[in-house]
Amino acid sequence: MYETHFGVPMSGAVLNAINTRLDARTVSVLLKHSGSKLVIVHPASLQLIRDALHLLPPAGHLLAPRVILVEDPYYEENNNDDDSCIHHVLMTYEDLLEKKGDPEFSWVRPASEWDPMVLNYTSGTTSAPKGVVHCHRGMFLMTVDRLADWAVPRRPTYLWTLPMFHANGWSFPWGMAMVGGTNVCLRRVTAAAVYAAIARHGVTHLCGAPVVLNMLANNASTSSETIPAGKKKKKVHILTAGAPPPAAVLQRVEAVGFEVSHGYGLTETAGLVVSCAWKGEEWDRLPASDRARLKARQGVPTACTAAIDVVDNETGRGVPRDGETMGEIVLRGGCVMLGYLHDDEATRAAIRDDGWLYTGDVGVMHPDGYVEIRDRSKDVIISGGENISSVEVESVLYGHPAVSEAAVVARPDEFWGEMPCAFVSLKDKDAAGSVTPADIISWCRDRMPRYMVPKTLVFRADLPKTSTGKIQKYVLRKLANDMGPTCKGETIE
Amino acid sequence: MYETHFGVPMSGAVLNAINTRLDARTVSVLLKHSGSKLVIVHPASLQLIRDALHLLPPAGHLLAPRVILVEDPYYEENNNDDDSCIHHVLMTYEDLLEKKGDPEFSWVRPASEWDPMVLNYTSGTTSAPKGVVHCHRGMFLMTVDRLADWAVPRRPTYLWTLPMFHANGWSFPWGMAMVGGTNVCLRRVTAAAVYAAIARHGVTHLCGAPVVLNMLANNASTSSETIPAGKKKKKVHILTAGAPPPAAVLQRVEAVGFEVSHGYGLTETAGLVVSCAWKGEEWDRLPASDRARLKARQGVPTACTAAIDVVDNETGRGVPRDGETMGEIVLRGGCVMLGYLHDDEATRAAIRDDGWLYTGDVGVMHPDGYVEIRDRSKDVIISGGENISSVEVESVLYGHPAVSEAAVVARPDEFWGEMPCAFVSLKDKDAAGSVTPADIISWCRDRMPRYMVPKTLVFRADLPKTSTGKIQKYVLRKLANDMGPTCKGETIE
Repeated sequence: MYETHFGVPMSGAVLNAINTRLDARTVSVLLKHSGSKLVIVHPASLQLIRDALHLLPPAGHLLAPRVILVEDPYYEENNNDDDSCIHHVLMTYEDLLEKKGDPEFSWVRPASEWDPMVLNYTSGTTSAPKGVVHCHRGMFLMTVDRLADWAVPRRPTYLWTLPMFHANGWSFPWGMAMVGGTNVCLRRVTAAAVYAAIARHGVTHLCGAPVVLNMLANNASTSSETIPAGKKKKKVHILTAGAPPPAAVLQRVEAVGFEVSHGYGLTETAGLVVSCAWKGEEWDRLPASDRARLKARQGVPTACTAAIDVVDNETGRGVPRDGETMGEIVLRGGCVMLGYLHDDEATRAAIRDDGWLYTGDVGVMHPDGYVEIRDRSKDVIISGGENISSVEVESVLYGHPAVSEAAVVARPDEFWGEMPCAFVSLKDKDAAGSVTPADIISWCRDRMPRYMVPKTLVFRADLPKTSTGKIQKYVLRKLANDMGPTCKGETIE
Repeated sequence: MYETHFGVPMSGAVLNAINTRLDARTVSVLLKHSGSKLVIVHPASLQLIRDALHLLPPAGHLLAPRVILVEDPYYEENNNDDDSCIHHVLMTYEDLLEKKGDPEFSWVRPASEWDPMVLNYTSGTTSAPKGVVHCHRGMFLMTVDRLADWAVPRRPTYLWTLPMFHANGWSFPWGMAMVGGTNVCLRRVTAAAVYAAIARHGVTHLCGAPVVLNMLANNASTSSETIPAGKKKKKVHILTAGAPPPAAVLQRVEAVGFEVSHGYGLTETAGLVVSCAWKGEEWDRLPASDRARLKARQGVPTACTAAIDVVDNETGRGVPRDGETMGEIVLRGGCVMLGYLHDDEATRAAIRDDGWLYTGDVGVMHPDGYVEIRDRSKDVIISGGENISSVEVESVLYGHPAVSEAAVVARPDEFWGEMPCAFVSLKDKDAAGSVTPADIISWCRDRMPRYMVPKTLVFRADLPKTSTGKIQKYVLRKLANDMGPTCKGETIE
């Protein structure tokens, strides 16, 4: 996967890193939509690709992509592999290099820096994936901008907790090459594996959605000593984005010894284009909870981002910089995608006049110019005419000492139209007896306006997530919908 | 000067930072050539500007630029100022901001990223300055590329030893703003002032030509303890470029406690586009002298540099990567200038087919892809058909314990055509009695081929330098020329 980030564009082709956790049907849709000619696959996903190829329509079958298999001597879970897979494989990756490779090959430079370089299907907090196309110019800008903004030193040791198929790992395949970094990969991202890699390899940097931070914070007690006692006694830097991190999670993971940087971006911007630039000693002096609250804000435009604004949906004008008035976050800059593949309509809806990208995220602009996300447009709960930010309710839920994860969605309400419905998992799965939904509702009542308090609160062992660790709100929204409307005066479930 | 790097381009104008150490005649030539409309000047240079304006031809006088004076309450050396200066001044800088400024002003974005942003007159190892024009795009690339390549952390403390009028301080006015750096400025760059600033302000980063490194190394004994005992016990990082640093100087300045990074660029590339990327532990293990020798190589292209090569002047083809065959260094990339102002002929000579910039520097390509400069084209000494690199001879001279600075130029020779002529200053000015030219010639004989040994060696108290600390070889070349040709068998002077 790492090598393809170089070899594929340098051969003049477009790289489409596919999420290996998708199902065969979706993969077949992507292969057809992208018109892929060649698939490079690891044994762990060979069955998936075989099934996907079988699902291609018969006419398309003749044009089915060729399959190159990456042999993996350390991969031992392939006992269940069906031998019938093999006839799909044209050759192995090493054979391809050995037999078809040319050491004198001059890499194919793009005719224009605007030529497409990568295709990324949105991993989907919605169920309809779209093919985001980025050009060489955008990837270059993202790479150098990210290194400069995160202040990545030379020769870091980088742990791949963020998959490379997610917006090309926020450009770090190229970035790590640029600074001479060491790449450490994991078969499976667990807290134990991360702490072991930090101790064994002296990991200095890793990326992940807030769910990864939460996992590390919740599992620190057994292994927290590995961070200071690791091979190198360096701070471990975590860059987080992909969802608004609850301040309580930031505070917990920093208490364990990680140094968190927080930013914001979309697949449509190839990675982070907004960064919560830290104001040094001025903010260092504040109490931990205030620091976490400031760090939970998405931040200011990075150098590659020409402009950002929060606009009123009706008028298109910027909202007041008061930290309260909600609007849609829009931005312009060198990292905005060329567009969605084969979808001019969606492209026109996303990129409007003068190149402004409409992100679909709802936020506020603080007086100091920092943007803070309140919600995805579709996640805003509209209750009796009031807009309720699900993110705000969640951040209070995360503050409860027993809560591991929380997600709030709209549930129909007979009187108010919608009311907040919270899904919560507990840190200690056996604690469900001692902590009740009513306890947690009561915690909310003490900390937010009455109209924002969840009317429904459901305990679940786990919350449904995308492969990149984003909670799938559309799944929860369906669950809440299926519960039927709450009635006036109904008590908590 | 720092503010103008933002305000001038953001008002839609082009910034031309003028070297304040030039004479009035040259400044008047630059003002006329650039068609300057506004001059912002510090009291220390007001007399210079007045004289320059007087030298503008009468017709041009009507179009003479308006003068804005930066008042400086801490500047006390203006007793000699002529009151007649004042009538040239339109208003003071603070008045300009106060009376003409508009807090609601929307800064003027360039219509195209290729629009000119800065004009830099080459400071001149030759005596004919040319006006290098760079665009917004190039300045952006240089800024982020330099931060990423030098791995500048957030909120560094940067000491301005490199003047901002020299290729816009290699883009660090913008770079320091981007990372929230603290800028420390000096009235006059002396070793004592630099060490004092490190101790007082906790300086973490500074830039300078090798002559600055040499100054710091030679004056370390009196104040070396200030580095470890400074306000912050951080390494002080020095970025050097502008001339090939002798390995002996690198070794000395690192012994004092500085960490040196070395790169290469030209005014025509807006700063450093080649960087001696350090190969980590592989090179850390080597003895100090080997490390210094490796670090003295100019290096590999940075991320903003598309390609670099060393080509044969006759054929235009790349020379063998053997570290021996000399050729002209050529490069392409996003930081190459738009061209020379009002000088299409010089532009065409510098930027040739497909955007290759011909640097005029002679170098070799090492087998590992690192470029090393051997000389400026015009500084190569051709003796009996052999090309002698003045830089190579100088690096041996710098190795002599008594030598402070050395410069080698061609002197005519009746038999060989040219022979090396060395100008040397000693660390201890009073040591001239105990160390003789013959001692140093003898040191050279033990360390280089016979034909490279200087036939003439002259002790001087100081070597002539440009304002940016480059030794003015054209001055020395004239001195050597005026000595007349050496004869076969002539002994050392």
